[in-house]
Amino acid sequence: MGSLGTPIAVNLKESGHDLYVYNRTVSKTASLAAKGAVVCNSIASLAKECTVVFTIVSDDAALKSICEGDQGLLKNLAAGSTHVSMSTILPQTAKDLAVLHEQYQLHYLAAPVFGRPEAAAARKLNFVMSGQQPARKQAEPLLKDAGGAGVFDFGDNITAANTVKLCGNFLIASALEAIGESAALATRSGVDASDMWNMFSQTLFNTPLYQNYSNIILQQKFEPAAFTAKLGLKDMNLVLQQAAAAGQQMPLASLLKENMQQLVNNGQENIDWSAVSTAHQFSRVSN
Amino acid sequence: MGSLGTPIAVNLKESGHDLYVYNRTVSKTASLAAKGAVVCNSIASLAKECTVVFTIVSDDAALKSICEGDQGLLKNLAAGSTHVSMSTILPQTAKDLAVLHEQYQLHYLAAPVFGRPEAAAARKLNFVMSGQQPARKQAEPLLKDAGGAGVFDFGDNITAANTVKLCGNFLIASALEAIGESAALATRSGVDASDMWNMFSQTLFNTPLYQNYSNIILQQKFEPAAFTAKLGLKDMNLVLQQAAAAGQQMPLASLLKENMQQLVNNGQENIDWSAVSTAHQFSRVSN
Repeated sequence: MGSLGTPIAVNLKESGHDLYVYNRTVSKTASLAAKGAVVCNSIASLAKECTVVFTIVSDDAALKSICEGDQGLLKNLAAGSTHVSMSTILPQTAKDLAVLHEQYQLHYLAAPVFGRPEAAAARKLNFVMSGQQPARKQAEPLLKDAGGAGVFDFGDNITAANTVKLCGNFLIASALEAIGESAALATRSGVDASDMWNMFSQTLFNTPLYQNYSNIILQQKFEPAAFTAKLGLKDMNLVLQQAAAAGQQMPLASLLKENMQQLVNNGQENIDWSAVSTAHQFSRVSN
Repeated sequence: MGSLGTPIAVNLKESGHDLYVYNRTVSKTASLAAKGAVVCNSIASLAKECTVVFTIVSDDAALKSICEGDQGLLKNLAAGSTHVSMSTILPQTAKDLAVLHEQYQLHYLAAPVFGRPEAAAARKLNFVMSGQQPARKQAEPLLKDAGGAGVFDFGDNITAANTVKLCGNFLIASALEAIGESAALATRSGVDASDMWNMFSQTLFNTPLYQNYSNIILQQKFEPAAFTAKLGLKDMNLVLQQAAAAGQQMPLASLLKENMQQLVNNGQENIDWSAVSTAHQFSRVSN
């Protein structure tokens, strides 16, 4: 029930599904309860009520802890149930979890999501999914009900969807760095960076991604964060871990990771990750 | 009369203007002559016929040499004439040239251009312009006739338009590197990079820039080049020169410059600059 989980759960409820919710911090489920969702006091009790479970958590360790143990999903879901996993995690973690689920006669589907909280509320998310065919077939209409304007099927290979998600977050972070450096160069050269980005947003980079982030970066509106520098750093680390596993050098990803690390080192871990290109400026200010 | 100059000249002629053309290599003017343009055998003779001159050349030195000397534009244009300069050059060069033109009672307008040759032929170019107001007012309809779907006015500051152009080429090069690294990571991770980019091209990166370049990069169709690695290196050097002049660090621009340099060092200077992220792969192959 975080910033994405809440609007996704609302969408599912408003699409007419019976909804059971669980969050470690119970207060975060209050808005769902008000809409008629049943709040469960443990993962185990939720698992006993549901045949399809959606999870969205911040990292690989949190996802594993939800699955494992006597109170986890694996031991408490009925055989034949499906776990639709929306978190951004390592492809290898998805593979490991799929194997574990199979041992319990459960289905594990990788279904990470693209979109900020506003997009979730507007049902404009994009899901990428991979896993066994019956689970994909079962999940597709549910992911649309969850707010997916697009549900993109990457086939049987369980690692595919999380690989695509890591590539996507790398691409977005690359755009943030590029926007930031271009805006800084323009400003320092005596050009109004807003005029410049007004032009680019209508021409070469005519997409909501560049339009929204160039506004945030030019106005330096890094708080409240829709996606924090801390999470950005986590994702760049996942990208580089996957690159190392795949034997691929990614110099731009390395640069982005360094800059995200610098932001976090500067105590800016809770501002929006779009501040990435300012990491060294913050550093200069604070030293 | 290069790959952009030719379709721009065709557009001007087909818009009904009297057109005089000059190119160092005369054979490149043949297609224009066939359309009714008058081919001049020197810059001086062209300058004596025209009150508005458009130039588009590959670098700062070539542009200066067109302007200077007994046979150059400065000494041969009639007072009150306008020079519309479309080349990608250093902002400081534009400033120096504007001062020189003023000494000869000539107007210098910075009007660099965004778009590949296909876009020029389709009249879908975007011009950015800066310089004195009368010259901007005079040039705007002419730039539309030259194929400008958009003509963006950056005001009096003569250095503004070339700064914006350098920022734009930096942004495009950043996208090329990001596309290339993402495609390599996907492929090495067992994901079909075409499927992945088919998705990104419909969603987060739904623009012709990403659609066209992801196709070129995935198919490794780096020849024939629409814009060469050699020109890409030239532009990244201009970006870093401007950054140094403005006192701005640009770590991503530095990375792009290194990769462009590597391509050129590998003897790949005439392939398309979109090969930028493969620079180190080529290097491995050839060593």
